[in-house]
Amino acid sequence: MDEPLITYEQALQILAEHSSSFTIETRPLKSCMGAYLAEDLFADRDFPPYDRVTMDGLAIAYKAFENGQRSFQIEAIAPAGTAQKELQDPCHAIEVMTGAILPQKTDTVIRYEDVVIKDQVATLQIDTLRFNQNIHFKGIDIRENAQVVKKGKRLSSAEINIAAAIGKASLKVRKMPRTIIISTGDELVSITEAPKPHQIRRSNVYGIQHSLQEWGIRADLAHVPDDPKIMHAKISGFLKKYEVLVFTGGVSKGKFDYLPDVLEALKIKKNIHKIHQRPGKPFWFGTSTDHHKIFALPGNPVSSFVCVYIYFRYWLQASLGLNETPFYVTLGEDVHFTPDLTYFLEAKLENGNDGTFTALPKQGHGSGDFVNLVQTDGFLILPQNENTFRKGEIYPFISYRYTL
Amino acid sequence: MDEPLITYEQALQILAEHSSSFTIETRPLKSCMGAYLAEDLFADRDFPPYDRVTMDGLAIAYKAFENGQRSFQIEAIAPAGTAQKELQDPCHAIEVMTGAILPQKTDTVIRYEDVVIKDQVATLQIDTLRFNQNIHFKGIDIRENAQVVKKGKRLSSAEINIAAAIGKASLKVRKMPRTIIISTGDELVSITEAPKPHQIRRSNVYGIQHSLQEWGIRADLAHVPDDPKIMHAKISGFLKKYEVLVFTGGVSKGKFDYLPDVLEALKIKKNIHKIHQRPGKPFWFGTSTDHHKIFALPGNPVSSFVCVYIYFRYWLQASLGLNETPFYVTLGEDVHFTPDLTYFLEAKLENGNDGTFTALPKQGHGSGDFVNLVQTDGFLILPQNENTFRKGEIYPFISYRYTL
Repeated sequence: MDEPLITYEQALQILAEHSSSFTIETRPLKSCMGAYLAEDLFADRDFPPYDRVTMDGLAIAYKAFENGQRSFQIEAIAPAGTAQKELQDPCHAIEVMTGAILPQKTDTVIRYEDVVIKDQVATLQIDTLRFNQNIHFKGIDIRENAQVVKKGKRLSSAEINIAAAIGKASLKVRKMPRTIIISTGDELVSITEAPKPHQIRRSNVYGIQHSLQEWGIRADLAHVPDDPKIMHAKISGFLKKYEVLVFTGGVSKGKFDYLPDVLEALKIKKNIHKIHQRPGKPFWFGTSTDHHKIFALPGNPVSSFVCVYIYFRYWLQASLGLNETPFYVTLGEDVHFTPDLTYFLEAKLENGNDGTFTALPKQGHGSGDFVNLVQTDGFLILPQNENTFRKGEIYPFISYRYTL
Repeated sequence: MDEPLITYEQALQILAEHSSSFTIETRPLKSCMGAYLAEDLFADRDFPPYDRVTMDGLAIAYKAFENGQRSFQIEAIAPAGTAQKELQDPCHAIEVMTGAILPQKTDTVIRYEDVVIKDQVATLQIDTLRFNQNIHFKGIDIRENAQVVKKGKRLSSAEINIAAAIGKASLKVRKMPRTIIISTGDELVSITEAPKPHQIRRSNVYGIQHSLQEWGIRADLAHVPDDPKIMHAKISGFLKKYEVLVFTGGVSKGKFDYLPDVLEALKIKKNIHKIHQRPGKPFWFGTSTDHHKIFALPGNPVSSFVCVYIYFRYWLQASLGLNETPFYVTLGEDVHFTPDLTYFLEAKLENGNDGTFTALPKQGHGSGDFVNLVQTDGFLILPQNENTFRKGEIYPFISYRYTL
C-alpha cells in the first residue's frame, strides 16, 4: 500500500522539528571564514578607544580661532601610536597624524590642505572651521561592554574585522556535523574509470560535497553497492562514525532500492518519505535513536540538487538557528504546470539596471539533465494548487551560485 | 603641489588596463570549490549516454498497447548497471529499474504504480500510455564533444557535478596570485596584545584576508613599522616573494606616511593615487617592473573595505576575465550628499516578498566606524555630479555578505 505523500510545507515543518544542535568549538580567527558564531561579541573598550584624529594636520583649541587667531605656532608633533601630548600654549598648535590620540587641550583639527606652514607657523587658508572637526570621538561608535556581534551570525569580513579589533584571536563557532555522502546504484562507476555503455560515472556526490562545503561542512564520500547485506554492514559502520548521512539513489520503487528497508533494519525512524513535488518526490529523511540524521535523496542529479538546496539547507539553517528565507524574485515568463505538486523550476536569474531581479525559467530534459543546471542559477518555488504562473508574478527563488 | 584627483570611473579603467594574467594549475576535483575554470569542458560521450529508464516499472513495445494489449507477461528484469537486455516477444515486458539501459525492442516504460502484477503478469490499471514515456533518450541533454562549461566560469556545485560526470578527476583552474596583506601604522598592536590608551589593535588585515579568501586567494599577513629604512628592506623582500601586495594605511598626507616614497624608491610605478570619492580617497595603486601589483588602501576600516570591494575586486574580476557587475537595487530613502565625489554609502539590503531589493542607507560615524559595517550588507555607489538621491531610484550595490 502506498503511504500518503506529504506537502513541501509539511516536509519543512518536520525537518525543523528534527533540527540538530551542533556543539561548539574554538577556532583561530583566520580559520573562521564562513563559520557560524557561537558566542556574543562585546566591545572590550570604547570604540574609538580614544579621541582619534581623522586627518593629518594641526590640532588647535577652537577658542583661539574664535578669538580671531589665524596663525598658529607649532609646538610639537603627535604621530599615531605615541602617548597623548598636551598643548602648552592655547594659542599654539600640535601637528597630528591620522590615527593619533588628540592632544589634551585641543578640540579641533585642521587639515594640512587648509594651511600654509612656514618657519613652524601654520597659517589658515580658509575662513571657517567647525568646532570639533576631524575628530572621531571616543566611544561614539560603540561603548565598552556593548554587544557588537550577536551569536549565530555567519562570519563575513565585517565580523572578522571587529573580532580582531576587540582582541579575539580565536572565536567560539559551531562545530559542523561529521558528514558522509554515500552514492548507491550499481550503474555507477568511479570518475577515474571508463564507463561501459550501460554505466555512468558517480558524479552527484561531488556536487553535493561542494554544496555542503559552501555551508561549512566538509563531508567524506563513499559508495555502497545494491546488496542489502553489504549495505547493512557498511551503513552500520557509518552510523557510528558520522552524525549526518546523505545518500543519493535507492529510495524509489525499484526492486533493488533496498535503502529504506536497510535503514529500517538499522532502527532509523523514517520521518519523511515522498513529497508532493517535482522533481525530488522520493526524498527520504530519518533519524537514528542517537539523533543522527539520514537524508536519502533521489538519484537523479536535478532531484538530488533540489533536495540538497531545499531540504538539507533548510534543516541546516534550522539547526544553526538561522532565519534565512529564499529571495523573492519576478517570474520572467508564463509557466503552465498541471500536476498538483510543488514545482521546483530551474531558472536563470537576471538583474536589470531597473533594479528588478527576474528569474527566467529554463526547463531541462527532466531530472536527469545536469547540463541544464550549469545553464541556470537556482530554483523557483512554484506552489501546489496552482497551474498557471504569470510573467511578472513574484515567487521565492533558491540560488546555488556565488554572487560575487 | 597636489596632484589632480581622478574619478571612480577612471580608476576602474586604469585597473582594467593593469589586470594580471594568472597562470594555470591542475587541481583535484574536490579541491576546486570556488576556483576559476581555466579550460573548456566537453562532453566525453552523449548525455544521457544511453536510453535511460527514468521510472521503476515495465518496458514494453508501444505497438502491443496500440494493438489493444493490456496484460504483459514479464520475461526478464533489467536492473541499473547491467548490460542491455532484449525483449524476446514483442507482446511481453521486461521489468526495468530507474537508471537502467532501456532493453532493445522496447520503447515505452510503464510505472509500477500503474500496473498490478500477479504471477509474473503485469496488468495495466490506466487507459492511456504515451509512446516513449519515462525514457531519457541518449544524447538529448548534450552530444558527445559538445562544450558543457566554458573556460573562466567560477566553479559552483553544478559545474563540479558535470565535471565528475565527464570523468574529470582534476581540473585546470587559475592559480591565484601569491598575495600578502601588510599593515602599517605605529598605533597598531597585535590582536593578542593589550593595547595602551593611544593604541588600537591591528584588525583590518584580518577582514581583508577573509574577503580575499572568499574570492579564492589565501593571503599571508605582515606588519611594517613607520620607519622608511625598515619598510624599504621588508617591502623589497615581499616584492620578491609575492605577486600582489596589499597595504593598509600610510598613504595619506601624514608626516609618517612614508609608503608612497618607499614604493617609488623601489621602482614601483604609481598608476593611481587619490580618487574623487568618499570614503577611500587616498587609494593608491601601482605596478612593479615585473608586473607585480601593489594596492595601498587607506588605514580606516571603512575606507579599506570600500577599496577592497570596489577596486581590488574589480581588478581581480578583470584579471580573471569575469564580467560581473554590481547588483542594481532600489534606494530605500532620500540621501543628500553635497561634495562633488562618488559616494560609497553603507546600506542594509532588504528583499521584500514583492520581489524588490531595497538598500537602506545607514551612515556610520565616518570611515573609522567598523561597527557600522557589521550592521550593513554592502555599499551603494552614488555617482559624482549629483547631490540628491531619491528614494525609489536605482543604484548599483556591492555586497560583502554571504547570500545563503
